Amino acid sequence: MFHTSLNKLLGIRYPIIQGALGGSTRPVSDATLVSCVSNAGGLGILAIWNQSNSRILKEIDRVRVLTDKPFGVNVAAIHSSYDFSKKVKVLAEAGIRIVTTGRGDPNIPAISILKDHGIKVLPVVATARQAMSVEKKGADAVVASGCEAGGHVGMITTLTLVPQVVDAVEIPVVAAGGIGDARGFVAALALGACGIQMGTRFVATRESILPLPLKEKILRASADDTVVTTMRTGWPTRALKSRFTEEWDKLNKRGASPRELRDFRRMVLKKVREDIEEDTIGAGQVCGMLNDLKSAKDIICEIIESACTIISGLEKTKSNNEL
Amino acid sequence: MFHTSLNKLLGIRYPIIQGALGGSTRPVSDATLVSCVSNAGGLGILAIWNQSNSRILKEIDRVRVLTDKPFGVNVAAIHSSYDFSKKVKVLAEAGIRIVTTGRGDPNIPAISILKDHGIKVLPVVATARQAMSVEKKGADAVVASGCEAGGHVGMITTLTLVPQVVDAVEIPVVAAGGIGDARGFVAALALGACGIQMGTRFVATRESILPLPLKEKILRASADDTVVTTMRTGWPTRALKSRFTEEWDKLNKRGASPRELRDFRRMVLKKVREDIEEDTIGAGQVCGMLNDLKSAKDIICEIIESACTIISGLEKTKSNNEL
Repeated sequence: MFHTSLNKLLGIRYPIIQGALGGSTRPVSDATLVSCVSNAGGLGILAIWNQSNSRILKEIDRVRVLTDKPFGVNVAAIHSSYDFSKKVKVLAEAGIRIVTTGRGDPNIPAISILKDHGIKVLPVVATARQAMSVEKKGADAVVASGCEAGGHVGMITTLTLVPQVVDAVEIPVVAAGGIGDARGFVAALALGACGIQMGTRFVATRESILPLPLKEKILRASADDTVVTTMRTGWPTRALKSRFTEEWDKLNKRGASPRELRDFRRMVLKKVREDIEEDTIGAGQVCGMLNDLKSAKDIICEIIESACTIISGLEKTKSNNEL
Repeated sequence: MFHTSLNKLLGIRYPIIQGALGGSTRPVSDATLVSCVSNAGGLGILAIWNQSNSRILKEIDRVRVLTDKPFGVNVAAIHSSYDFSKKVKVLAEAGIRIVTTGRGDPNIPAISILKDHGIKVLPVVATARQAMSVEKKGADAVVASGCEAGGHVGMITTLTLVPQVVDAVEIPVVAAGGIGDARGFVAALALGACGIQMGTRFVATRESILPLPLKEKILRASADDTVVTTMRTGWPTRALKSRFTEEWDKLNKRGASPRELRDFRRMVLKKVREDIEEDTIGAGQVCGMLNDLKSAKDIICEIIESACTIISGLEKTKSNNEL
């Protein structure tokens, strides 16, 4: 069921990818979450940002203990000093076959390095222009990520971005941003995508390492409780509003100096280290429709089952001639 | 085909509404465009913002000469002095049976006044909370309008807003914002909407009164050529970027006084009166996928036809077990 070009490309059962998930202290998409998603028939993606090579290799080994299914790794440059060539070599030697690049922007230089190592590359893009440019560089598919996504974001919404990317490239297009259930999954397929990537939905799972009170914040939040802030990484990032994002916003509005901003960010990170519940959580506007803590497996199974019902409903609506 | 609760509510053939369209000098959704949409089986909506009663009545008469199909009127308060009760009385006496309220916000006080006159009311909402509140006031359906829409906008994207509104209310939900073809139409139905409202797509039609060079600007634009600005009406409005929106942005960033802003806005309006091609055009992110000038009828026919093909494709994808 729901076998598309994405399943074929990645060797997975269902065309559902778990987006790479960061965190202030350690990545949320660790070996546990990744293996649960892959075992359920989707594609788990490890986030390895800013981690040491030994830590990365250890985490990859841990995934392999937990699943024999395909999984991927995300490479994204948070700092400008990030050396893609070295990182990619480590991944290639560890036998990684699938990589997503970028978060909100596609990290174009990384693509040809990855392709040189025979790795399948799925860059995350925020515009149709970026999609065309990564296709030229040899990308195997693109993840078209709308501005409603959690984490790093562009400016264009998923509903308008996906068909524009589908029209612009020949490679398979994965829809990301604002998808949390079967309705979003079927909508994505209708827009021409060959599958979906979900982030926020997988953050609020039983298996994710996010502390329970923070998961509950996501489940309680409304769609208008998120904000795009540069506080977390220096790049536009969608997160739940917090007292820190509000203060950050005020600082920017009154034209604070780079030094003031840096000091504020350090203070926030210190507070978070002392009390993890103070953390500003990356989350998309989809949070307004998430209410239950579920397992990654249940999320995937429910999407596939309900998608069948939705598509049968569309067939009925199509044929309804009642007046 | 595609008969939903919306067709039944409004007495229309296809569940497609043309959103009310303003303009700096006169409304784009005038009798010509409205009647073409209604004649093609959709629901045309007259924009009457800030027009005199005699002008409104003349335009309503003109619609009735051009079509015997249902059509609606949009009431939205641009100025705070707007008197809903008086305006609604005029509409009721003119036999108007369908009204949409608000643009980006639902104009809640107008709803009970309209209901008192036995008019069917479809408020435009930007959050699930607004949807619940207008349902309580007696709204017959809601138009859930995402932030990618042209014109007045909220903060939440269509893909995340629609399912959240569907979960929050019992009345029918129309999806608006970012929809321009059959892909968006089927996606909206998959999200639980009973139909769609399109604005930008109908601005760039053969029938719309917008001067051809401005229509061509929309057809040439990319999704990232739009910007949310308060320049046009004082409220957040999505429009094509122009030299004026850029200057307005700069003025705001350097903390210009209300007087400076007012003077700038007056200067812009004067320039536009002298040369209509200088106008800043309200347009949504969907502009990136619009390429052809079409008639309203062709747009509606193509959506219905292609939607059938897309739904058959979804059925096939659903059943595809290939490995």
